[in-house]
Parts: sequence; structure tokens; C-alpha cells
Amino acid sequence: MGKIIKKSKSVGQPPGTLIYEGKIRPEDVKITIFDYSENEFQEKTVKSAEECVPFKNKPTVTWINIDGIHRIDILQQLSQSYGLHHLVLEDILNINQRPKIEDMETYIYLCAKMLSYDEKTKEISEEQVSILFGSNFLITFQEEKPGDVFDITRERIRNNKGKIRKMGPDYLAYALLDAIVDNYFIIMENISERVESLEEELVENPVPTTLHQLNGLKRNIIFLRKSIWPLREVLSGITRSGSTLIQENTLIYFNNVYDHTIQVIDTIEAFRDIVSGMLDIYLSSLSNRLNQIMKVLTVIATIFMPLTFIAGIYGMNFNTSASSINMPELNWRFGYIFALSLMALTALGMLSYFKKKNWF
Amino acid sequence: MGKIIKKSKSVGQPPGTLIYEGKIRPEDVKITIFDYSENEFQEKTVKSAEECVPFKNKPTVTWINIDGIHRIDILQQLSQSYGLHHLVLEDILNINQRPKIEDMETYIYLCAKMLSYDEKTKEISEEQVSILFGSNFLITFQEEKPGDVFDITRERIRNNKGKIRKMGPDYLAYALLDAIVDNYFIIMENISERVESLEEELVENPVPTTLHQLNGLKRNIIFLRKSIWPLREVLSGITRSGSTLIQENTLIYFNNVYDHTIQVIDTIEAFRDIVSGMLDIYLSSLSNRLNQIMKVLTVIATIFMPLTFIAGIYGMNFNTSASSINMPELNWRFGYIFALSLMALTALGMLSYFKKKNWF
Amino acid sequence: MGKIIKKSKSVGQPPGTLIYEGKIRPEDVKITIFDYSENEFQEKTVKSAEECVPFKNKPTVTWINIDGIHRIDILQQLSQSYGLHHLVLEDILNINQRPKIEDMETYIYLCAKMLSYDEKTKEISEEQVSILFGSNFLITFQEEKPGDVFDITRERIRNNKGKIRKMGPDYLAYALLDAIVDNYFIIMENISERVESLEEELVENPVPTTLHQLNGLKRNIIFLRKSIWPLREVLSGITRSGSTLIQENTLIYFNNVYDHTIQVIDTIEAFRDIVSGMLDIYLSSLSNRLNQIMKVLTVIATIFMPLTFIAGIYGMNFNTSASSINMPELNWRFGYIFALSLMALTALGMLSYFKKKNWF
Amino acid sequence: MGKIIKKSKSVGQPPGTLIYEGKIRPEDVKITIFDYSENEFQEKTVKSAEECVPFKNKPTVTWINIDGIHRIDILQQLSQSYGLHHLVLEDILNINQRPKIEDMETYIYLCAKMLSYDEKTKEISEEQVSILFGSNFLITFQEEKPGDVFDITRERIRNNKGKIRKMGPDYLAYALLDAIVDNYFIIMENISERVESLEEELVENPVPTTLHQLNGLKRNIIFLRKSIWPLREVLSGITRSGSTLIQENTLIYFNNVYDHTIQVIDTIEAFRDIVSGMLDIYLSSLSNRLNQIMKVLTVIATIFMPLTFIAGIYGMNFNTSASSINMPELNWRFGYIFALSLMALTALGMLSYFKKKNWF
Amino acid sequence: MGKIIKKSKSVGQPPGTLIYEGKIRPEDVKITIFDYSENEFQEKTVKSAEECVPFKNKPTVTWINIDGIHRIDILQQLSQSYGLHHLVLEDILNINQRPKIEDMETYIYLCAKMLSYDEKTKEISEEQVSILFGSNFLITFQEEKPGDVFDITRERIRNNKGKIRKMGPDYLAYALLDAIVDNYFIIMENISERVESLEEELVENPVPTTLHQLNGLKRNIIFLRKSIWPLREVLSGITRSGSTLIQENTLIYFNNVYDHTIQVIDTIEAFRDIVSGMLDIYLSSLSNRLNQIMKVLTVIATIFMPLTFIAGIYGMNFNTSASSINMPELNWRFGYIFALSLMALTALGMLSYFKKKNWF
Repeated sequence: MGKIIKKSKSVGQPPGTLIYEGKIRPEDVKITIFDYSENEFQEKTVKSAEECVPFKNKPTVTWINIDGIHRIDILQQLSQSYGLHHLVLEDILNINQRPKIEDMETYIYLCAKMLSYDEKTKEISEEQVSILFGSNFLITFQEEKPGDVFDITRERIRNNKGKIRKMGPDYLAYALLDAIVDNYFIIMENISERVESLEEELVENPVPTTLHQLNGLKRNIIFLRKSIWPLREVLSGITRSGSTLIQENTLIYFNNVYDHTIQVIDTIEAFRDIVSGMLDIYLSSLSNRLNQIMKVLTVIATIFMPLTFIAGIYGMNFNTSASSINMPELNWRFGYIFALSLMALTALGMLSYFKKKNWF
Repeated sequence: MGKIIKKSKSVGQPPGTLIYEGKIRPEDVKITIFDYSENEFQEKTVKSAEECVPFKNKPTVTWINIDGIHRIDILQQLSQSYGLHHLVLEDILNINQRPKIEDMETYIYLCAKMLSYDEKTKEISEEQVSILFGSNFLITFQEEKPGDVFDITRERIRNNKGKIRKMGPDYLAYALLDAIVDNYFIIMENISERVESLEEELVENPVPTTLHQLNGLKRNIIFLRKSIWPLREVLSGITRSGSTLIQENTLIYFNNVYDHTIQVIDTIEAFRDIVSGMLDIYLSSLSNRLNQIMKVLTVIATIFMPLTFIAGIYGMNFNTSASSINMPELNWRFGYIFALSLMALTALGMLSYFKKKNWF
Repeated sequence: MGKIIKKSKSVGQPPGTLIYEGKIRPEDVKITIFDYSENEFQEKTVKSAEECVPFKNKPTVTWINIDGIHRIDILQQLSQSYGLHHLVLEDILNINQRPKIEDMETYIYLCAKMLSYDEKTKEISEEQVSILFGSNFLITFQEEKPGDVFDITRERIRNNKGKIRKMGPDYLAYALLDAIVDNYFIIMENISERVESLEEELVENPVPTTLHQLNGLKRNIIFLRKSIWPLREVLSGITRSGSTLIQENTLIYFNNVYDHTIQVIDTIEAFRDIVSGMLDIYLSSLSNRLNQIMKVLTVIATIFMPLTFIAGIYGMNFNTSASSINMPELNWRFGYIFALSLMALTALGMLSYFKKKNWF
Repeated sequence: MGKIIKKSKSVGQPPGTLIYEGKIRPEDVKITIFDYSENEFQEKTVKSAEECVPFKNKPTVTWINIDGIHRIDILQQLSQSYGLHHLVLEDILNINQRPKIEDMETYIYLCAKMLSYDEKTKEISEEQVSILFGSNFLITFQEEKPGDVFDITRERIRNNKGKIRKMGPDYLAYALLDAIVDNYFIIMENISERVESLEEELVENPVPTTLHQLNGLKRNIIFLRKSIWPLREVLSGITRSGSTLIQENTLIYFNNVYDHTIQVIDTIEAFRDIVSGMLDIYLSSLSNRLNQIMKVLTVIATIFMPLTFIAGIYGMNFNTSASSINMPELNWRFGYIFALSLMALTALGMLSYFKKKNWF
Repeated sequence: MGKIIKKSKSVGQPPGTLIYEGKIRPEDVKITIFDYSENEFQEKTVKSAEECVPFKNKPTVTWINIDGIHRIDILQQLSQSYGLHHLVLEDILNINQRPKIEDMETYIYLCAKMLSYDEKTKEISEEQVSILFGSNFLITFQEEKPGDVFDITRERIRNNKGKIRKMGPDYLAYALLDAIVDNYFIIMENISERVESLEEELVENPVPTTLHQLNGLKRNIIFLRKSIWPLREVLSGITRSGSTLIQENTLIYFNNVYDHTIQVIDTIEAFRDIVSGMLDIYLSSLSNRLNQIMKVLTVIATIFMPLTFIAGIYGMNFNTSASSINMPELNWRFGYIFALSLMALTALGMLSYFKKKNWF
């Protein structure tokens, strides 16, 4: 299940201390550079931050993608060449960072959560993505392995599809955010499927594990809300910022991602309501089942208690020879038949009473 | 039940990819053109988007209605002749689109949900309607079969009823939105009827299926909320936009639709509260029934246990001849009568106790 | 119970169609005219809208009260002479109209709900009142029979009490709204009484009908909320409108009604919380009662089961002559006494255990 | 319990009718005048409003305190000499008035609720206080007996302690509001104590009266909320009003009371959450107890039913002489011992099964 | 558990009375002075407020830390030398003070809550910290023993690490707030661990103490919310204040703490939702367990009642010699076998019925 808060090492550290808080992966950090304009295109995988410097003053758009943020030295090098504020560096390293936007005048810093759904464990995991763009560059920082979500955008740059090569880093930022938000819809579809299968289970045969699944689902939704809600503010922040780094004609694109984000949030809220409704159904199905059990018990007890009582009466040892009114039935010719008939009649009476009361 | 999210194909696609996400209907796309001014009127059904071009520069109002949006080529042709933004095209094709408004300066793009209620399945289905209007044209895109909801407006244009032929495309947009919102009231009335019939059922004879119906109703309400809520912002967006495409004297009409939308939303919220109250009643009726069952069981058990115990005592085999104090009752003349009377008295005592306690 | 939505006939009709949606009453529409200034006063009951025309250009304040809105022809006549917008006419006829304010420059249109409480059925019914005032006239439209609520205002005009004859139609509008809102307090007092009597019932003897009454109360509160909430916006709309039709020195009066409306809304919210608390009490009293029942059953069963078991033992038929250890008790001198004592001790032990456990 | 709404007589009365709505106290109205400047001080108890007039034009600060508002003539006299608006008079008399502020240019009208907690009945009662101040006067109206809450302020004026004699009526208004809000903290402490004692009761021995106390507490909190919430707006209204009657250097004092009010509101909200959590505990303790009861019943029944059955078997009357396989146990030497052992073993088996299942 | 409200002594006191409301600690007040600029540094522990005066006019930054606020004389001395408003003094002494910010032109007053989590009692306790800074000084007031939270900042000043010695008192204020908010994350991690361990307990073996722990957790969350929520406003107040005491380039730091605070608040809200979900699980596990108990009871009763009944029948004493149809089974050769088989078959039938019904 997505953890609400991850253990972090930097808590208790003075501000300005750069500490990577996530898991340290054995693989090395991978730096990929895409440098393009409408006519030019260059793709490069480098090992050190220094190799990024030459691109800094080129008029072309340079997209530097950093996979893995555990090498603080690389971050510091980049930070120096691009003049990043050390608080921004801290935010990039803080994997518990809330999605946010920071307009630093010469560049804009964005932070969002890339989500992925594990089909097997039915859990959602999040990866933090930092996007940082200026007038001719864009840097992305990813916590873990190269994300598939950005591959489509890479492909479009390589093949000069659509408008992407004709536009600046602001449009690239949009394209990346759009890829992230589009991916949320896939998560939503997975949740939607789980909701439906759980609903069927609830109607057909609710078992205690259903409740635990329901609760897991609920926690997933809480986790999603926490990850996605703040993005709304981030995106409305972009459109309201008035930064010169964002061209007038890309604003409509950010607006579009904003609309999609609200749509995701609406969907999350709807799922929340639905899941809480499912819990009510589960609880009332428990009550219902208890009623069924109690009915069975009551019917059985109500039928057999009088019968056993009658049998008990004729098992009494009153001395029939002491007086003629001491259990004369015992000596009747049809005494036994009489007793059995009495029992049968009692049972039938009870049964018809319950029938009338609609108990079975 | 209205699905919270529909499966879509475009997720994971780069922005700018035009993919129709809904079901592809076998019938062809149907394009209907209404061209009118106060004195002129022309109605035409065409097969290709090219046939719409001649109307573009006429001063008359041209309403182009596209039934079916699976033919992307037609959309692109239209888009070129009317200079539509490709993001708008994407929104038109995205059937999960949240109701929205986009002021594109030369035209305004609106998106809303047309709802219909299926009497048989008691389910609400939605169809997306995109309305797009400029200074002398209005284009509507509908997902499925020609909607009855717009027929009244068509009739009014044909017969030059009311103000519609005297006004511009902004008034036409209002008339169409008004038709959509008016239709919501019919849905509300249907929901209202279901609420009432379920309430009667709850009071008279609640069964487990009542709960499932209640839950279905609740989901319908969640679905309605998700579809209608955003329209509020859309309509207040129109009245606040200050676009020159909307005449001063049509603003009051949009205000009117806005009022109706809020009224629908108020009603939805009221239904929500009512349905949650009904759930409480259902649950407490379950508890109540359990209490009834337990009372029956307790009364029966409490009456027959002492009786059976008395019978058990006189069924003991103590040797009356071994001593005169060993069960002398067995040899009494009225022993049996005594035992039966004892039982009857016990039973009567119990019954009167329960009577006093108001248990039946 | 106040219906959340009333059946309406105009749904599906084109905008501009005037259809009265309420019940058509057999009695005719009644038009009453009050024409007054500080020194003059005239009261008149007329049959047609034409008779209202002469008052239009008089400098005096003219209050035209229309009881019954099913005669559309009368409305249209009035509309023509006073230059009303046809959307306003539609709103007047739409009995599901949400309380609203529309500033039409030459006149202001207000719509509010007059509520009445039926002591017998304990139901609240609403009647729509439309108030429309310009510089020298005020027209009121009421759905049903002459409302008592306005009678006090009529009396004050007739007798020239207070400031009313010295002020313009804006003050009259205030006086009427004040009468409507004052009446809400009476409804609140009735609800308050029902809440208290239900609370007593809950504490003393909750029965299933208590729940249904509670639910009825809850629905009434939902209904009230829906009727009164929007009035808040209407009144704040008046004070913020800046219309020249409202004199500076009457603004404070509208402010006052606004305060009262908020007070009513506060009260409704408080009742909501209280009623939901009452439901919790009802449910827990059900649980409590179940616990009581189960205690009785358990005490009885726990006492009689061991006793019956002992009786059962001594009812076994082991052959005492086959061996001296086969049920020797049966031949003891005090065998019977021993068995009865054993039973009594068991019962006492059980009882004292339950006593200690505080079970009765 | 604080009543949500008090019966009022003025409902249904025309606006402008002055009616006192509270209880009429036998004692007379008491008017106290404090007239002070930094150097002068005069305290006077008068009988009529006329005696207040001479102070009106003195440059000193005059605080007129009216205890009891049932003498409408006194109010009207005061109103005339100080030029009060008759709506303000109505508000003073309306004991259901919501806390509010009204800036009347020459004076400011404030209304707040003074709360008191009755240790015995554990109920909170409210008294309405109206404060009205101009450039050199302040008038307070209290519903009932002289409030202790203001005594400290009186003492400070008499003894010229602190800044109060150096400041104007705005500071005096602050001092009085501060006294009122300070008193809320005492109420909060009382509620806090009740919450704690109820919590202990809940954990140790929840009984049905616990629930009623919990509900009483909840209603008290609802009542407090309704009384205190609006004060927040009143105080922020003062600081935002920009009235010349409030000196720049007293604004910070009003800000301070505002902060305290928000603190009280925060505390109320926290209590609300806590009380709702306590209800959950109560309900689950009921369920828990039911589980305990059912366990006892089940253990007893499960142990004795098989035992009684075994006894029943050996109580059957099959003729042992008819065949050697007809209940040969009855004639065994250790038959009785065998039967008793069988029973003991069954019981032990059951007990160990329940032990293993952790049932007792 | 963090108390929602602490007993205070100043309630009922006139404004301006300085009363320390917390526990009076035996140790003396400790005053520590840090005086530094980029190149100079001085650390001093003094006994009286007078020793702070010489630092007042030095251009260096002076941080005066007061541990213990029960010596009102010291506060008053400081207040005089730094020209503090007496309301600020009151706020410092009021340990129930809500986190707030007050811009006093020559200095800014901030109040926040330092939280600590006691591992043993699992309780959160709060300590109030007042921060007060001007152009060249910063004074902190702490309620209790020297807080570890500020030690890191002290260390950085001593060792001239990072920017702190190069910046003014505004940056120092940020560093202290950052230390406080960072500490909240530790609390969050502790809560997170408790949530997880309780969740495991809930799934594996929920006992009544689980509920009490859950409730304790809930109260902790309510307490945290009350302590941390207002800090949000405080921090947004700083960034919006436009005070000249805060340098443009430190604003981004306050923004950063603001983001962290919102993140903490988001986490608290998520925990709230999770804890309420856990309560639902607890309650449904109680219901579930009741169902299990009832199943056992029902199975046992349903199996043994018919068996005992059969045994009862053959325990009747009908006289077999009186007629041949009086219990002929008793004399059958295989009578006993027949009876036992009948019982076995009944039992098996019952068991297979329950098996089919999935009852065990």
C-alpha cells in the first residue's frame, strides 16, 4: 500500500543539508541529454554533470534527464552550472515533497508524483519527479528506474512529431506533465476494476477478507488523494504565475492538463463515496447474516422445545396404580399414538406460524 | 449504472493524437446544417465536412450538428475550415471530458453531459455534447444517435417561433444548454419517484434487495453529481468571461440556465441526504428485526425450560420404597395433576411477566 | 412532507413557453391593488390586469397582489404594461424556482418561499412568492390562497402605522420579505417542539415509529434547508447590488432581514446536528434492548440447563441391582432431598454469579 | 440544556414593533452610570433614562449599563437622546439575536452572548449583551441580573488600574468583549472536565445513562457553536470596518479578542470530534458486551446440551430383557461410572476447545 | 494525551494582568545570549534581563533565548528595553495561545507549538515557543526545559555553518521555525508506526483495548490538528505581510516551511481518514465475531435438540403391555440400535446441511 509518509533521514538536520532520503540503488545515476530545435536533434547519455555544461549557452532546447538522485555530487555540479537555489536542491532530494511549484524567476521548479499500479500486489507506488525549466533548458529528476511514462515524449522529439520540436521548454514541461496526468487515468481504470470486482463479491458472497480488501482500496484512495490533490494548485499556479518563461500560447496546454487533473480528482472523490457505500453494504450484510443464523436457531429451538417437553411429561414416573388420575394416558390403548400426534401437531403449528411470519 | 470512468484508448498517447475513445457505431456520421436569419431558413443533411464550407462566410447563423464523432477525418476538415485548436478537437473526442468552457477568442468551446434515464434498467447513461460557437456559426458534436433533446430547438428554428431566429449563435448556444439542463429535471423526477417507492418498501417490508437498490440509487446520485457539478462553473464562466461573442442581452439567458443548474445541484444534494437517511432506516430495521427474533426465542426458551425441568424432576428414578421422603409426589393421589398445575402456573407466571415487560 | 421536487409540465418545452406548473385552483385569480402615499390611500379588488394600468404613471406607490398564477393571460397583460422580461414571467410561473434575485435595471425581481406548517400532518408545505418592484410599483405573485403572512403589512398600510406609507416600494419589499422570514421562526419553533417531544420519546420508550418520525423530521429539515439557504444569497445580492431602486436608508432594513435569515439557517444546521445525534441514540437503544433480551435468555438458559441435566442424570435407568455402584443415590434415604438440594445450590450459585456480574 | 431557539412574541409582528421577548423579571430595571476620564470618576445608580442625558455632552467617557430590558419606555428615552435607529432597538430586545455588528456611523452596535455554566444541572445558559458605543459614550444592555463578568472592568475603572481610564469608549468596548470571551474559556474548562469524567465512565462501566450524558454534552457543544461562531465575524468586522470610532491603537486589542475567539472555536471543534469518537466507543462497548453475553450463553449451552443428551439416552426405556443388545450398559457393573465419565470427558473436551479458542 | 485545553489562571483577570499560567518549575529561568555577525560570535549565559541591554544597540544579530517564563519580572525588564507591547507579553505567558503572528512594525511576534512524543506513554505533549524578532535581535521564550530542537541551529551559529551567520534575524526565525516543523515529521513517523502496528493487531486479533488505543490515536490526531493547523496561517501571514523586517531573499525560506507545514497537515488529514477506516474494521470484526459465536451456538443447539428429543421419546413410560402399539420399539430386538441410528442419521443430516450452508 502506498505509504502515507516515508521514513526520511533529513528530519532533524539543519536546513541546507543535502541528504538523499530514498533507497540507494546499486546502479549508477544515468544522465540523458536531448538537445533539439526544429531542425536539429542530438541525444546523448553522459556520466557526469560536467558534460551538460556545453549545452547551457546553446539557443536550442536542452532536456537533461537524471535517473536516480542519490548522487548528491552530480546534483551540486548541475546546481552550480544552472544557478539553482539550494532549497530547490533540498526539495528535489526530499522524496516526501508535496507537489509544488516555485517560480525562481530564471527558472521554474515543479514537483509531481508519478504513480504506478502493481497488478499483483494491487498496490500503488509513487515516484517523485522534479521538473525544472528555464528559457532554453529543462531538467527532470526521477527517483528510480527510467520511467516509461516519458518514453512517448522522447519518441516524439526524436521523430519530430507534432509541435514539440517547434516549441520551447515550457511546452516540453507541459508534455511531461501531460504524460504524468494521463497515467493517472490508467490508475483510475485499475481502481475502477477493483471496485467493480469487489462489488460483485459483496453482493454474492461477502467474507471477512472482502472487508480487508475494501479497506486496502480505501487506503489507496486516500493515498492517491494526497498525491494528486496538490497538483491542482501547482497547475493553477502555473497559469496564474505570469512568468515570462511560459509563452502565451502554451498556457492553453497547461489549462488542459489542469482540467484533466480536476477530472482525476473528481473521480477520486466519486470512488471515495462509492467505497464508503460498499462498507455500509458489507456491514449490513453481516447483520443480515446474523439475522439468518438467529432465525435458524429460533426455528429449531421453538420447534423442539415443546416436543421435548411433551416427551418429558410422559417420561415422568407418577405411579399409575396409586390413583386412576395419575397419568392415565400411559395405560391408554392409543397413548403412544396420542403423544406422537400431539407432538406432530405442535410441530406443524409452529412451522405454519413461522411460514406465515415469512421466516423461511 | 453510470460508469464513473469509461475505458479510453488515448491514455498513454502523446498529446495531439486524435483518437476517438467511444464505441464505434456502424452507422455513418450524420451532418445536419441549419442556416438561418430572421427571414431566411435552410435545412440540409450533408455527407462531408466540405459541404459546410460555403456557409462559413455567410452573415446568417449556421448551426452544424455532427451526430457521431468516430470519423476523425470529418472533424479535422471542419477544424481546418473553422480554425479550431487541436486541443479542442482532442476534448471533443475525449468522451470522459469534464464539462468545461474554453474561450478561444474567435470561438467559445463548451462541453456538457446529456443524460438519459432508462426506465427498465433504472440506470442513467450520459452522452457528451460539445458546443462550439463563433460570431456566425455554432457546431454541435454528439457521441451517439440524434438526441431528442435538441428537437424542440430545431422545431422552433424551422417555424420561426420565439426569438431564436432573431438572435445570434450565442442565443442558440443558450437554447441548447437550456434543453440539456431542462432534461436534467426529468432525471430528477425519475430519481424522486424511485426514492419514494424505495421509501415505501423500507417502511413496509425491507429485504436485502432493498439495500442493493438503495446502493444503486446512491451510485446514480454520485454519478449525476460528477456529471452536473462542473456545469455550474462552465455557466458562471460564460457570464463572467466578458467575451464579445456573447451579446449583453443574452447574458440574462445564460444566468437563467445557471440558476436552473444550481437548482438541480441543490436537488441532488437533498437526495444524497435523503438516501443516507434511508440507509440508516434500513440498518435499524435490521436491528429491529433481530430484536423481534430474539424476543421470540427468549420467550419460547424461558417458558419451556422450566417446564421441561419440572418434567425432568418427576422423571427421576429415586426409589420411593427406599424411604418415604423419596419423591412421595409420585404416589400422591393428585400427583400428576399437581405436576401439571405446577407447570401451568409457571408458564402463566412467565407469560404475565413478559406481558408486563411489553414483549408481545 | 415537503416534496424535494414537484412534477412540472414545462420541462421539455422550449424556453419562452409560458406554462403554469402548479395545481389549477377552481377559484379565479384575485387581483388586489393598494395605492398609497403618505397622505393618500386606496384599496381595490379588480378582475383584469387592465384595471392596473391607470396606476402605472401615478407618483404614488402601487402594490398589486396577484393571488393565483394559473391565468397566464393576466400575467402577460401585466407584463406588457410594466415591460417585464419574458424570462421573469417564466420564473414566476416555475413553481420549482430556486429563491433568486434578478436586477433588471427598471425593476428588481425577487423570488422566495413562503412556508407553512400543518399541525396535523406535521408537514411543511411551501408556496412560491414572487416580488417585483420598480420605482413606484410593487407586484406580488402568490401560488395559492391569500397568504396570512402579508396581512399585517396590509393592515399597517391601511392604518398608516410606522414608516411604511412614508417610504417607497423598496421598503414595502423589505416589509414583505421580513414577514416571510419572520414566519420561518414560527416553523423553527414548531420543529423545536417536535424535536423535544421526540427526544422524550427516545429516552422513555423508543419504538420503531420513533425512527420513522425522526426520519420525517430529518426530511423536513432537508426541505427547509433547500428552501431557505438560497435566500441568503438573494438578500446579500440586494445589499451588494447597488441598484438605484433601493434607497440608501432602506439598505439597513434589508441587512436586518439578512441577519435573520442567517439566524434561521444557523438554527436549521443546529437541528440537523441534533437530529443526527438522536438517530445515534435510537440505534444504541436498539442495541441496548437486544442486550437486555439476551441477558434474560442467558440467565434463564444458564440456570435451567444444569438443573435439567441433573434431573436427567437421575432419570437414567441404570440397573441398581446389577451393581452397588450403579446409581446408589436412587436408593439413598435422602436421595431425592440430595438431588433437589444439589439443584437448588447450583441455581443459587448461578444467580449469585450473575448478581456479581451485575446482570440483573 | 441551552435551547436552540427561544419562544418569542414578536414573530408575526410588523417590523418596528418593540416587544421584549424574554422573561419579565419582577425587579425593576437598574441603570448604572460610570462617567470617567483619566482624572475624573463618577459612579451613579439612577432610576430613569432622563438622568443620563446630562452626561451626553460631557467630554468624559460615559458608560451606561442597563440591567433588564423589559422596560421599553426606558429604552425609547435613551434611544431618543442618543439618536438610536429603531432597528437597533429591535435587535436589543430580540433575545434570539445572532451576535452581530452594525456600524451606524455615529455609533457602533455590537451584540454578543454571555454564557454561564450551571454546575448542578450541567447546563449552559446564555444571556444576550448589547454594546453600543459612540465617540464619548458606551451603553450596555443586559437581559438579566447584573453580570459578574463585567465586575472586574468596573473595579479597574474605579481604581484607575491599567490603561482603561486613559482610553476612550472603544477600549472600554474591547475590555467588555474581552471579559465575555475570557469567560468562554471557563465554560471550555468545564466541558473539558465533563469530557474527561465521561471518558473514564465509558472505559470503566458504560451504562445507558452514559449515552444520555454524552448526548447532553453534544447538544451543549452544538449550542456553544451556535452562540460563539458568529462572534468571529463580529470581531473581524470591527477590525475591518475602518470606523473612525475605533482608534488605531485599540485595533490590536480587538485583534487579540479575535484570536481568543478563534481559539475557543478551535476548542469547540476539537470537542466535537472527541465526543463523536466517544459515541463510537460507547456503541462498540455495547457490541462487546453483547459478545460477552453470547459467549457465556454459548459456552453453557454447548456444554450442557451434550451432557443432557447422554443422560437422555440412558433414560430411555428399551427393554433390556427383550434382547442382549438393548442398552446393555444399564446392566454393566460400571455402567453408571461409564456414563458419568463419558459426560465428564465431553465437558472437559468442550471446555478445552473453548479455552483454545480464547473464549474465557 | 495532549490536553485540548489546559487549566489557566488568568481567565477572569482583567486584560493587562500578567499571569504565568503553566507549571512553575523549581529551576531558575535560564537566559542564553548568542550574539553574532559573519565574523564575530559570542555566547553567554546570564541571570538577569539587564545583562541583555548592552546588546541592543550593537549592529550584530542578538538571539536571546529564555528558558522558563514563570519569572514575570524578567519578562517585564526585557519588554521595557525592547519596547514590547503588553498584549504581546500576555500572549507569551498564555500557554494556551493559538499559533499566531502579530506584525508590530518594529518587531514581529510569532507563536508556535513545539511537540514531543513520549515513546512510553505514547502521548504527545506540546510546549509553546514564542519568537519575537526585530531588525537586529530575536528573542525566544520557551515554556520548559531547554529544547533539543534548537540545538542544531545553535551548533550551526557556533561553527558558522551554512548561511546563518551571514543573514539577519529573519533568517534565524526561519531556521527556528524550520526546526520546529521538521520535528513534526518525526511525530508523524511515530504516528505512522502506531497506525501500522494497530492495523496488524486489528487484522490478527482485535481486543477491546485495541479500540481504546485507536481512540487514543484519534485524540492525538485531533490534538495535532489543533496545534499545527493555525501555523499554516501564521506562515502564509509572514509571506503576505510585506514587513520590512523580512528580507526579500528570506521569503523563499518561509515559503519552504509553509510547504512543509501543509505537507504535515495533509498527512494528518490522511491519518484521520485511515483511523476512521480502522474503527469501521474494528466494529465489523466485532460483528463478525458475534456471527461466529452465534454459528457455534446454533450448530450445537440444532444438532442436540433433535437428538435429545428422540431420547426423550424413548424415555416415555407408556405401558407397553397395555397395548401392542404402545411404544413397541422398546421391545424390539434392535430397538436400541434403531434409536441410536436414528440419532446418528439426524446428526449427520444436520451436519451436512450446515456444511452445505458453509457454516463451518
